[in-house]
Amino acid sequence: MEKKIYRVDLSARTVREGRLEGEHARLGGRGLTSKLILEETDPLCHPLSSENRLFIAPGMLAGTALSNSNRLSVGAKSPLTGGIKESNSGGVVAYKLGRLGIGAIVLEGRAEPGDLLGIRIDREGVRFEDLDELRGQRIYACADRLRERYGDKVGLMLVGPAGEMRLSAACISVTDPEGEPCRNIGRGGMGAVMGSKGVKALIVDDTGAPSPLKDKPGARKSIKRFAELLKQNEVTGHLFAEYGTARTLTIVNGLGGLPTRNFSEGVFERADRLGGEALNRTITDRGGMAAHACMPGCLIRCSNKYVDESGEPIVGSLDYETLCLLGSNIGIGDMDQVARLNRLCNEVGLDTIETGAALGVLAEGGLLRFGDFERAKQLLEEVGEGTPLGRMVGSGSAVCGKIFGVERVPEVKNQGMPAYDPRVIKGNGVTYAKSPMGADHTAGNAITAQTDHTDPSDKVEISRNLQVFTTVLDILGLCLFSGRAVNLDASVIEEFIQHYLGWKTSFDALRETARGVMKAEREFNRRAGLGDAHDRIPGFMKREPLPPVGTVFDVDQEQLDAFFAFAEG
Amino acid sequence: MEKKIYRVDLSARTVREGRLEGEHARLGGRGLTSKLILEETDPLCHPLSSENRLFIAPGMLAGTALSNSNRLSVGAKSPLTGGIKESNSGGVVAYKLGRLGIGAIVLEGRAEPGDLLGIRIDREGVRFEDLDELRGQRIYACADRLRERYGDKVGLMLVGPAGEMRLSAACISVTDPEGEPCRNIGRGGMGAVMGSKGVKALIVDDTGAPSPLKDKPGARKSIKRFAELLKQNEVTGHLFAEYGTARTLTIVNGLGGLPTRNFSEGVFERADRLGGEALNRTITDRGGMAAHACMPGCLIRCSNKYVDESGEPIVGSLDYETLCLLGSNIGIGDMDQVARLNRLCNEVGLDTIETGAALGVLAEGGLLRFGDFERAKQLLEEVGEGTPLGRMVGSGSAVCGKIFGVERVPEVKNQGMPAYDPRVIKGNGVTYAKSPMGADHTAGNAITAQTDHTDPSDKVEISRNLQVFTTVLDILGLCLFSGRAVNLDASVIEEFIQHYLGWKTSFDALRETARGVMKAEREFNRRAGLGDAHDRIPGFMKREPLPPVGTVFDVDQEQLDAFFAFAEG
Repeated sequence: MEKKIYRVDLSARTVREGRLEGEHARLGGRGLTSKLILEETDPLCHPLSSENRLFIAPGMLAGTALSNSNRLSVGAKSPLTGGIKESNSGGVVAYKLGRLGIGAIVLEGRAEPGDLLGIRIDREGVRFEDLDELRGQRIYACADRLRERYGDKVGLMLVGPAGEMRLSAACISVTDPEGEPCRNIGRGGMGAVMGSKGVKALIVDDTGAPSPLKDKPGARKSIKRFAELLKQNEVTGHLFAEYGTARTLTIVNGLGGLPTRNFSEGVFERADRLGGEALNRTITDRGGMAAHACMPGCLIRCSNKYVDESGEPIVGSLDYETLCLLGSNIGIGDMDQVARLNRLCNEVGLDTIETGAALGVLAEGGLLRFGDFERAKQLLEEVGEGTPLGRMVGSGSAVCGKIFGVERVPEVKNQGMPAYDPRVIKGNGVTYAKSPMGADHTAGNAITAQTDHTDPSDKVEISRNLQVFTTVLDILGLCLFSGRAVNLDASVIEEFIQHYLGWKTSFDALRETARGVMKAEREFNRRAGLGDAHDRIPGFMKREPLPPVGTVFDVDQEQLDAFFAFAEG
Repeated sequence: MEKKIYRVDLSARTVREGRLEGEHARLGGRGLTSKLILEETDPLCHPLSSENRLFIAPGMLAGTALSNSNRLSVGAKSPLTGGIKESNSGGVVAYKLGRLGIGAIVLEGRAEPGDLLGIRIDREGVRFEDLDELRGQRIYACADRLRERYGDKVGLMLVGPAGEMRLSAACISVTDPEGEPCRNIGRGGMGAVMGSKGVKALIVDDTGAPSPLKDKPGARKSIKRFAELLKQNEVTGHLFAEYGTARTLTIVNGLGGLPTRNFSEGVFERADRLGGEALNRTITDRGGMAAHACMPGCLIRCSNKYVDESGEPIVGSLDYETLCLLGSNIGIGDMDQVARLNRLCNEVGLDTIETGAALGVLAEGGLLRFGDFERAKQLLEEVGEGTPLGRMVGSGSAVCGKIFGVERVPEVKNQGMPAYDPRVIKGNGVTYAKSPMGADHTAGNAITAQTDHTDPSDKVEISRNLQVFTTVLDILGLCLFSGRAVNLDASVIEEFIQHYLGWKTSFDALRETARGVMKAEREFNRRAGLGDAHDRIPGFMKREPLPPVGTVFDVDQEQLDAFFAFAEG
């Protein structure tokens, strides 16, 4: 049975149900969103216009107990980059969509001005709900209200005030297994696109859905084998559970590539207060959860529930990118302060990476001092209130740099850089430059590569291989971190596809599919006017050595320009 | 004797004197700035970085009494569009540079942070001056101070607070024959580039310069003949002198293409209060100057000196674009109010077109009401004060649209549209879309064409011919308005070139040179990442008919894409 695709026309208030067919039937997640964008979206449309479409697709493997396999992709033309975008997150929604046999939901058109809608999805189909009462409300309160109305079991995707205001740094929040709306479709302003359609929330209820597995015993065997592979690696086996993604902070700081004070230094003097050991100790001492699964069935459990000194929850999962961008990058070395900024971003509905990058730029521009938690907090409150200044902060790093005349803006295609300075972690520099998604570590995170990170010579190849591999994971809906297990033995995935979906493939064939997806993304960007000239690390990173290591971004330009050779001609 | 080129290195505080040679010796104005940009400026540099260069070039014919021949071009990579930019103005500076035998001044590098410099140019050469005392000062007070210090006879180019803050809508002001700093190098943020170099003003003194004419009697004959041609046409002969450029407002309003309330209507109900007759009557009644020459020797005298009810000066030349963009486009129908907003822009150093476009977008976004003069004034004051909100306003229409989630932004390549709605004046739509300069009517203003402006079929050809012709004028330094006389008999220009500069050419050869200049501009943009995908009129103007005429912008896309066929392949 092919998966369903629901086309939700907000302008006409109609829903069409179809089936994923042909090539689409063997895609999921980013593979599906990107192909559909290329096929359906005018690359020259205004990203906030009714012509843009929002594509929601669980990964191909979503809906089962396979560890790490329930990522949710959302794609559209990005209001931040002007190009194609896919962003994915954990949480429970992809699992539920998978159980419901849904391969994609497409939001088309837009609601009448003044309408604020919910979209309710269950075994019966898709319905519209009036959510006008939630207008302007913050995300946690909204999630509570929606669970009151629709039951504790529903999974939610929702936007906060930032998304309603269509700000370019707006994210879409997804609820985790405890119902906390803290797993974010963060990058590229997908929340602004959802907000532009007049949609406040999607409510997904898989109650009564039958098991979607074709071959249950076979699938169970694969699930078990994948679990064993995850345990074999010390990172996926226990380090992530102990130290969270914050363990990466200590590593990157040790290498000298930790974005600090708007990417002006690579080592932060208070990194030990933000790293994995501090996180584990703090949470454990206070009685929070140091190891937590953000998706049903996840065995890695890199997520956490961060609490304050009296054990009260602050934020569900304090993670590396946030600890850097809202920590070292704005000169803040107090974990509680970062957690509170994180919670505020989650409440307002802002990508923490873009917001932290913007605050760093604004600090350089003189709007706040580095390390000034109170001012940072006030600015985020202003985003929620929709003041002009708040709107500016919520519009991302590139716009803030433009307004404050700041030349040192760490961005590619107007998207702020994640927590790896490309002058030291040069493979990530290649990923930032060449991914059709703009500066995005999740498109191919080279920090995992066994390499001298400062040596530019092999980084184009490393990034390319990682980007193809990551695209496979993004199609399947597998979490990046499970890549370590897949690398140990990819046949487990081939088997699981057969047991779950009932067709044969090989991991090499999936890689070829992934190349096709990247090619489609590149082509959309070309039509949207983004090409090699936009695939650039900012000039200051090529001229200004990063202290203390002292390197610049010096990956050969010809090699960079040849990155997509596999996809062209 | 070839003309001089001064290279002013702000980083090293050195000046190199050279001569314009080869092809450069037969160029001036935009021809020279654009060719030099392509040759010297890294198309991928940050426009506010020390790598960008600011090229200042009087037109080829500058320095004599030939009417309308003393335009001043300034070019650089634009912080507004990200592409190549040339903007030109009247005033006295080009005349003085011409008299000094100077063909170009190049500002390279940038001053140390904290330094604010003047550049003094006279017969002795070029020197640096410390202008730190003028930091943050408004333009009129600066001009007074500089004339006190350097004498009444100097010509000035200067930036205000907006330029010092490197805002993308910052202009460079040029003094007119009375010393009023009201002739603006307006478009594309050239003031931001000048400000980014740490330069507050250029002070040009041509005292004691010998006549530059090769053949004085011959030149005088041509000057006289050109004057006669100007008189033959009623517009250049007397209409512009009587009604100023404001006469165009009545014409465009009559056609239904007058940008009104953020380009949502094409007829403004109070247009009669902003048109040429109202302008003439008001100025004449109050004792201002209704006809005024902005450049030495100009016989058209479209400029004016607008005064208040008691005869006190408000602003030197209230012009059409401003009357529309700061008038009808923001719902203001009171000429005094427009004049006061104009003066404020001139004081702070803002392009009135970009600023008016930004205010229109912000009104649509809810930051002010249409017609709210006090709020508009306050916002412009805030630009001068450098508040975050003011910086946003001064960053232009596209940035404001992004921050306020406004889809209806009238811009091309992030540059706000001038006072002709492309849905009705479709030839200007082609010019906006295809000029390498972004939305800029001066690149080829089709309002002068004898055509049905709403018929899309011939507008690509009309705009192309106009753009080539205008580029010739921009090379020569001839004011757009003198084009009517040139069209009557171009041989007068051929003759004058021989008498003045001592070499033979034909107008056809100049057209060929102009095509080469446009090709260079197009090539720079291509390298900077701007191509066909950026040569677009915003989607809303293709979908949303403009009341009351009811047309959309519907020029054939294939024809548009073929615009540069003459320059490619």
